[in-house]
Amino acid sequence: MSAVRFKARETIEQVEEGDDLAPKFDDRGLITVVTTDATSGELLMQGYMNAEALSLTIQTGEAHYFSRSREVLWHKGATSGFVQTVRELLVDDDQDCIWLRVDVAGGASCHVGYRSCFYRKVPVGTDFDASQHDGHIDLEWTDTEKVFDPLEVYGDAPNPTKL
Amino acid sequence: MSAVRFKARETIEQVEEGDDLAPKFDDRGLITVVTTDATSGELLMQGYMNAEALSLTIQTGEAHYFSRSREVLWHKGATSGFVQTVRELLVDDDQDCIWLRVDVAGGASCHVGYRSCFYRKVPVGTDFDASQHDGHIDLEWTDTEKVFDPLEVYGDAPNPTKL
Repeated sequence: MSAVRFKARETIEQVEEGDDLAPKFDDRGLITVVTTDATSGELLMQGYMNAEALSLTIQTGEAHYFSRSREVLWHKGATSGFVQTVRELLVDDDQDCIWLRVDVAGGASCHVGYRSCFYRKVPVGTDFDASQHDGHIDLEWTDTEKVFDPLEVYGDAPNPTKL
Repeated sequence: MSAVRFKARETIEQVEEGDDLAPKFDDRGLITVVTTDATSGELLMQGYMNAEALSLTIQTGEAHYFSRSREVLWHKGATSGFVQTVRELLVDDDQDCIWLRVDVAGGASCHVGYRSCFYRKVPVGTDFDASQHDGHIDLEWTDTEKVFDPLEVYGDAPNPTKL
């Protein structure tokens, strides 16, 4: 498989208004990735890629990330089977963020077992009542049905969540 | 206006499966934010909040961010008029990412002038042809119509894009 090559970032006009792919990797060598369901538009997860993960995603059409907690290249679905097929890959104005629009095999993207990682919401504006709970907030569940059992899928692999 | 208070992060179960809002701010004091159009589902922008910006967003129902390039609290739309009214604010499994579903006054979210910051796409999988351009990639435009003229709205304010 031939490699993908990224252009050097030379001018703001080139980055914002040009047709060069010239992504900005941060001081850890990572770029932020936002992954949504191509059909429903739902936000599934937010992750990171290094240059290798971005190249592999472009070449294979399947989402690859860099796992910060495990510090490895991560072909999403390699363990769980929930592979993400990329329908569209977009880049933002200053090219420091990638948007993946994907189809998910099996319909799950969250290691906790939910379809999306975003299954709880925060009351805002007039729905926020600071007098309750001394300013602390109770999250509200938007999804309560797990698509899979994490123990069955991941066994005793360490949980990626860090406190 | 009473303050919002965040819970301390004590256990993985509390963070992933509990109803405490216990966000994880990184070593710069920031949390990643993904902002989509509440109606179309389109990804508008990806930004950051510090604790103050998150509190203000919850209290006012209008999106506040922390600008990394300008290093200031940023009430989105204060300059441009393109205020984002938060319809829903969600948090992810390990609480290191916020999802805002917003309505945008004026319909623009991108400082370059487009509706969304994501107006260019990258060919992937079978659409990627490594033999072209020696592995370099030509971005394809998905939106070519600017909603506003940045010069008119921002004048000679410095461009936030960093090379």
